[in-house]
Amino acid sequence: MKRRGILIVVSGFSGAGKGTLMKALMQKYDNYSLSVSMTTRAPRPGETDGKEYFFVTKDIFEEKIKQEGLIEYACYCGNYYGTPRAYVESQLSAGRDVILEIEIQGALKIKEKFPDALLLFVMPPSAAELRNRLIGRGTESMEVIDQRMRRAVEEAQGIEKYDYIVVNDKLEECVEELHGIIKAVHNTADRNLLWIEQIRKELEELSKGEK
Amino acid sequence: MKRRGILIVVSGFSGAGKGTLMKALMQKYDNYSLSVSMTTRAPRPGETDGKEYFFVTKDIFEEKIKQEGLIEYACYCGNYYGTPRAYVESQLSAGRDVILEIEIQGALKIKEKFPDALLLFVMPPSAAELRNRLIGRGTESMEVIDQRMRRAVEEAQGIEKYDYIVVNDKLEECVEELHGIIKAVHNTADRNLLWIEQIRKELEELSKGEK
Repeated sequence: MKRRGILIVVSGFSGAGKGTLMKALMQKYDNYSLSVSMTTRAPRPGETDGKEYFFVTKDIFEEKIKQEGLIEYACYCGNYYGTPRAYVESQLSAGRDVILEIEIQGALKIKEKFPDALLLFVMPPSAAELRNRLIGRGTESMEVIDQRMRRAVEEAQGIEKYDYIVVNDKLEECVEELHGIIKAVHNTADRNLLWIEQIRKELEELSKGEK
Repeated sequence: MKRRGILIVVSGFSGAGKGTLMKALMQKYDNYSLSVSMTTRAPRPGETDGKEYFFVTKDIFEEKIKQEGLIEYACYCGNYYGTPRAYVESQLSAGRDVILEIEIQGALKIKEKFPDALLLFVMPPSAAELRNRLIGRGTESMEVIDQRMRRAVEEAQGIEKYDYIVVNDKLEECVEELHGIIKAVHNTADRNLLWIEQIRKELEELSKGEK
């Protein structure tokens, strides 16, 4: 079967281990391309242009919007964030599965524009475990942790709109689960219509030839 | 996550290797239950009651229909064929995935009554390969083979209505693919609404507790 890449959107609560999970997935399997978002916010210490984000000026970002060079974008806290179109489309055409790591509003915008995008939501094993992980990081104040928990409550409103959920309990197992889901989705009838049509024609020809 | 069994319908052209595939899947993994159909046709040499089919009289079959004891049934060539309800429902409740091996009309009836049933279609790698396999069996006349090919053309009309297709090229790989798809389908958001709701409530409670 011929395969075109799948546009995969991965979302999840802060603390669900999404970042680590993506890193492990990319390391283990080489059919994935990770899309890097563009933003007008300033880089934080340790962040590299082109790795965490493409850091650009407001003018450049707005020019990109005009040229329809972003497949989705949004404004948070006075800064733009968006997904550059060119990279995504070239990778998909080359048959590579492209992963966008974005939050729920962006994810739903993608699904609207690309109905065959695959939306995955990474869940913690339980709410208590999510909180433990946020505390365990030891880098944030209780105030920030409470903020994140409240934000998780908001984000949790839209989970049903995702196609699949994965529970990030053990990292290795979750990577396999994620990869397994994406592999399975390549086999949906909807994604193989051309191939089905081809077999159908071949069957018709072969069965006519024998009459 | 709590899991209820999935009702899985497997169809495929005669010669696509469906029977062998199901046998190998059941042997390798123990979470599947194979539903045995009921029929009024006479057993063929070598067939055992309760294994290939439950062989019953027309009266018993029609009584079953009246009692709504079949989840679908149809009449072919003057004989009834149907799927007994009790076994399917008890296995699903016990969390076991139940496999029905039925043809396309039956499959679509199941999908109508059970919208969350999973419909899988087993494809040959190509039409030519399908024909080769039918010839290779060495048990059928060219006339019967041509008949089967023409039937495949008819059956091929409905493939898009299936959820997933699998290509049976190498048996072992196809078993894994099939198992992988079913595993993935357990992770659809739709099949985990109760669990999602539970996490949501826990998140709300935990975030309130911290205010």
